[in-house]
Amino acid sequence: MAPGRSRRPNEFTPPAAEERRGEAVRCPFCPGNEADTPPEIFALRAPGTVRDGPGWTVRVVPNKYPAVGRAGEAEGRPGPLFETRAGVGDHEVVIDGPEHGLEFSDLPLARRRAVLETYRERVRRLESEPDTVYVQLFKNKGREAGATLRHPHTQIVSLPILPKAVREEIDSSARHGRETGECLLCRLGEEERRAGERLVFENSRFSAFVPFAARFPYEVRVLPRAHAARFSLADDSDIASLAEGLGHVLGRIKASLHDPAFDLVLHQGPATGAGQTEFLHWYLEVIPITTRVAGFEWGTGFHINPVLPEAAASRLRI
Amino acid sequence: MAPGRSRRPNEFTPPAAEERRGEAVRCPFCPGNEADTPPEIFALRAPGTVRDGPGWTVRVVPNKYPAVGRAGEAEGRPGPLFETRAGVGDHEVVIDGPEHGLEFSDLPLARRRAVLETYRERVRRLESEPDTVYVQLFKNKGREAGATLRHPHTQIVSLPILPKAVREEIDSSARHGRETGECLLCRLGEEERRAGERLVFENSRFSAFVPFAARFPYEVRVLPRAHAARFSLADDSDIASLAEGLGHVLGRIKASLHDPAFDLVLHQGPATGAGQTEFLHWYLEVIPITTRVAGFEWGTGFHINPVLPEAAASRLRI
Repeated sequence: MAPGRSRRPNEFTPPAAEERRGEAVRCPFCPGNEADTPPEIFALRAPGTVRDGPGWTVRVVPNKYPAVGRAGEAEGRPGPLFETRAGVGDHEVVIDGPEHGLEFSDLPLARRRAVLETYRERVRRLESEPDTVYVQLFKNKGREAGATLRHPHTQIVSLPILPKAVREEIDSSARHGRETGECLLCRLGEEERRAGERLVFENSRFSAFVPFAARFPYEVRVLPRAHAARFSLADDSDIASLAEGLGHVLGRIKASLHDPAFDLVLHQGPATGAGQTEFLHWYLEVIPITTRVAGFEWGTGFHINPVLPEAAASRLRI
Repeated sequence: MAPGRSRRPNEFTPPAAEERRGEAVRCPFCPGNEADTPPEIFALRAPGTVRDGPGWTVRVVPNKYPAVGRAGEAEGRPGPLFETRAGVGDHEVVIDGPEHGLEFSDLPLARRRAVLETYRERVRRLESEPDTVYVQLFKNKGREAGATLRHPHTQIVSLPILPKAVREEIDSSARHGRETGECLLCRLGEEERRAGERLVFENSRFSAFVPFAARFPYEVRVLPRAHAARFSLADDSDIASLAEGLGHVLGRIKASLHDPAFDLVLHQGPATGAGQTEFLHWYLEVIPITTRVAGFEWGTGFHINPVLPEAAASRLRI
């Protein structure tokens, strides 16, 4: 429960009004408007420029409408039925660049690398906080993907409990590991590279493919070829390789699907990861928004995908 | 995977074009256009009217773009990695009434009852098919909720496997049942009626409340007070009572939230239900679409709700 988030500028604004306003409103992420955000936490800056002024290429600030908080939070309440837990954590925003209209895939390779290095820096920092159990990095691009601001940005949230979806990934990777002695995603990546029909991109360190059981049309998984449980373990060569691969994938999605809204989601092991997470393998997931999650999906947890993964990959590969 | 569904009339149509077209296009669910749907499976009709002609108050037809199918399906393929299963089942559409502009909550009580009796009739029928493991009933109202047609309608899908979300509800209800000897939802319903702060409606057989840990703003659960695992076990008095309660809840959502899109979702036990489903308790869930499922939710499986359940219930109660 995060009632403060309902104060975000455009919530419940009808699409038409928002479209009109989108361009008129002063963008808090544009250079010169640094005072419109909380004070910066981190930035890559040109020499001689000052904190909370222009001159940065990547800038990190606290989310003004955080989903989690640090001080003065309500105490948790024990169960059994109406159990609560204080949402202790940090919610940061990475402003991907000073340009209002340039997305990750539009940036030159060195700038993409700088964005990913900033992700790694902040994820590492939040993982080192004593309260942190899991760090969730994600990017919502476009209104249909949940974004409330157009200026390209990414969000990072640290959580004091293990998320349900991560628990499921830990369990399924551990089960496969116990049964076969291998990492499920290492194996899947190999199979996808061999089969080729769902492959979208590969370089020496990453492969990108539409999952065999993709839930959404044009969903793409960007998978490190080497086994590692967490993104923050990536070295500089990994980052450079990912900057190439992720840029390519997002560029292809933009070009071949008429610039759709999308969610970019990091999946990884917990900050405190050990033991049963030895078979967990981090990856990024890109979900272009072309369909709606609706009644069938909420009832069953299953997804109806009207685009075959092989057809999706073929369109993204061209 | 249901590639046939991408042939639905308005998929990928930009909102503006769809809005314009929405009123101009010939509605396949309006009386007089019965030939635009596949032949009807069931209807409540005035005496002397004929099948696939006008004169009905509720009409059921096969979905023209089904998510599951009967004949000529591909065989499943065994695992371990790339396992598939043929999507054998029925996908039906209940046309709630002949009026293009009247929703369930706008209908008089007797008509609402007729709609729910039709649901029960079709759910029972599909549950009795030998391939059916689970029957999912849902209604998507409005484009934001996944609907492609405006004329009020409901969908029913029979599935040959147990859905993931149902498996989770079976497991959690069974765990609570083992530990306490009671049904989790019977107990929750009692607690919510006692507390009152999240209650939206109650009559002799149903109560409706915003869940304590609601995932979405103004989410409402409509719960039968008597324990039963499946909707199709409802008797005529239950149906009459639900017609009142669900009509009230949907009417309040329409009136107090500016007529939002919503998903209505049935949660219940499997068709073949026995054994561990003794503690399962069916309910309906209404999810008004006011926020977006985005990167955070896909990564964690958690939901950030900006509206406190007590505030939501208070707004819906007035």
